Amino acid sequence: MSDVRVAGVGLTAFGATPERTGRDLFGEASIEAFEDAGVPRADVEALFYGNFMGELAEHQGHQGPLMAEAAGVRAPATRYEAACASGGAAVREAVTRIRNGENDVVLVGGTERMTNLGTGGATEALALAADDLWEVRAGMTFPGAYALMAQAYFEEYGGEREDLAHIAVKNHEHALPNEKAQYQQEIEVTDVLEAPQVSTPLGLYDSCPISDGAAAVVLTSEAYAEETGLEAPVSITGSGQGGDRMALHDREYLARSPAAREAGEEAYEDAGISASDIDVAEVHDCFTIAEAIALEALDLEPVGEGITAARAGRTTADGDLPVNLSGGLKAKGHPVGATGVAQIAELTSILRGDHPNSEHVEDATAALAHNAGGTVASALVHILEVER
Amino acid sequence: MSDVRVAGVGLTAFGATPERTGRDLFGEASIEAFEDAGVPRADVEALFYGNFMGELAEHQGHQGPLMAEAAGVRAPATRYEAACASGGAAVREAVTRIRNGENDVVLVGGTERMTNLGTGGATEALALAADDLWEVRAGMTFPGAYALMAQAYFEEYGGEREDLAHIAVKNHEHALPNEKAQYQQEIEVTDVLEAPQVSTPLGLYDSCPISDGAAAVVLTSEAYAEETGLEAPVSITGSGQGGDRMALHDREYLARSPAAREAGEEAYEDAGISASDIDVAEVHDCFTIAEAIALEALDLEPVGEGITAARAGRTTADGDLPVNLSGGLKAKGHPVGATGVAQIAELTSILRGDHPNSEHVEDATAALAHNAGGTVASALVHILEVER
Repeated sequence: MSDVRVAGVGLTAFGATPERTGRDLFGEASIEAFEDAGVPRADVEALFYGNFMGELAEHQGHQGPLMAEAAGVRAPATRYEAACASGGAAVREAVTRIRNGENDVVLVGGTERMTNLGTGGATEALALAADDLWEVRAGMTFPGAYALMAQAYFEEYGGEREDLAHIAVKNHEHALPNEKAQYQQEIEVTDVLEAPQVSTPLGLYDSCPISDGAAAVVLTSEAYAEETGLEAPVSITGSGQGGDRMALHDREYLARSPAAREAGEEAYEDAGISASDIDVAEVHDCFTIAEAIALEALDLEPVGEGITAARAGRTTADGDLPVNLSGGLKAKGHPVGATGVAQIAELTSILRGDHPNSEHVEDATAALAHNAGGTVASALVHILEVER
Repeated sequence: MSDVRVAGVGLTAFGATPERTGRDLFGEASIEAFEDAGVPRADVEALFYGNFMGELAEHQGHQGPLMAEAAGVRAPATRYEAACASGGAAVREAVTRIRNGENDVVLVGGTERMTNLGTGGATEALALAADDLWEVRAGMTFPGAYALMAQAYFEEYGGEREDLAHIAVKNHEHALPNEKAQYQQEIEVTDVLEAPQVSTPLGLYDSCPISDGAAAVVLTSEAYAEETGLEAPVSITGSGQGGDRMALHDREYLARSPAAREAGEEAYEDAGISASDIDVAEVHDCFTIAEAIALEALDLEPVGEGITAARAGRTTADGDLPVNLSGGLKAKGHPVGATGVAQIAELTSILRGDHPNSEHVEDATAALAHNAGGTVASALVHILEVER
């Protein structure tokens, strides 16, 4: 099996750019990725592309070939859709194909245009990720679903709103030096606690924003990287995917994420490492409670303790395991289809030492990316490693 | 590399069932596939699922986990979207994963619910497959796009409406014994020529219908099939994918399909056979002209001669190369996300000898499935073989 090298990464700034089309955003991200990689577009053999709500936001499906064109690539292209884990699903197949020798150079990307829908329209579009018959028609939205999960967590393991607030404060703190982040804005625990409630116990600052943005990464085989003399020190060494029932009412536990656990176990085994080897992680913090539950499912925190990880300083920039150094979905932003690819881009940059937050993890050799869809009916986990 | 066995296939009847949900349709198709396969659901390791317009037809994205649930499968699931080639894209990754030893048993499926949108709504939803900015907003619909391709074909290679009419007549004829077909209705050349014009030169009978339906196939590795004593004589031995510019105005030739050519060449090479080895084919005849162009791109007819293949009897049931023995999209129906998977199901049944049209190709050993997206900006080709 070939090693999978991350040859180059590109990101647009995440934020509110309602006037920019998806192809405009992805074009920009891909230019940055190709410049970073130093790989000619003519060598690209396939595009693996994540997008979630293009049908509603731009009346545009079939984005594979459209985005290949936007990136200046002439190659077969497929769109992956797994709700907010669409980007991670695209990464997974790209990794598989390089490993098995079917491709040597591929482009992986993801984009979402959301703010042109307005907050109400975007919330409605996001509800495509839930069960329309049993959840959405009963009035469920994602803030409500994650609020239920938070209530269940508090009841089962303890914890309080202030614990969650520390997760938001941490991720905003991490985003301060990240020029691509939607919010480079420091907040304090009282800001979170005093913010308008969205769905109890979650308030405005417990929730990630609605965002526009795109991400692109160029992946190559080890052989290609060596033959062409690429500087590509970071490898994707593990991939895992987990699934769960779609609707919350079908789950045994509201406050756990078995899909993330399955994906994590597969990815650790695949990479031949364990959770204790992970030095830095990007996890899917669409809401503050999601970060706590994910850390536990990924064995990065014991069950029942994920909630206190930020407050106790274990997952802050100077903690033992910095989590969401990019700012996370919370502060960096969450253009849905881009997120899973952006996590790979940020971690690559962090491991290479060219990220504004690299200084916090100078000796890091292993990183984890966790991308989730819906209330984690889909979970994708990837492991990145660099030799020191 | 493992051989990929088709262990079981299942199809709903294709037609107009606007009251049935996507999960209802796919549930039925999967039950038939599991019964046919004799494989326990608990052995399924992943679902690869094609769907195109669920966001508009059912306000439902994230159909991977939802449809795993509908099929009674607990496994990671991803949705593939490549417009009308969504099903083929799902098949392709499933094949890759079994070949490379990553999975031993997978479910591949596809569904589309369309008729509940009405003809106008379905036509608008189908336009998601074209370039929204440059084509759809200028008034382009798919009948119009394929009419342009037909006009260009006539101009470049000759041919006339009566040649196209024979393609429709042939596919309706093939559908007569197929109980799952939307139209079991014989038509004559004059019916096609006298039908209302949709977009000149294409009339009503040159166009496939709007359809609801689902398809499912269970694929296994050779090792699994042998260990468990499955009767699974048909293998998928080749897979290819091609891509093209999205918008017609960006193409060098309107009357050719380079994406299908690329996909075909890759699939033939992958299977280690050539076009002349193919005994029976299902090709993507969303309009009559599409079948003619596809046959040429796949090297099953010389360039400029695909148009006369049906009229001359080369592709009829008793011709040298029967094409669309299922009835094709034209008469069997075209529930978009299901089509690429349904082609695999029909060909498997044809090669096994349990299809109502098997008698026409009793000695067939190699079959080809061609599934196209948009005006063939995406093309997927698979080769199936059976030993005699």
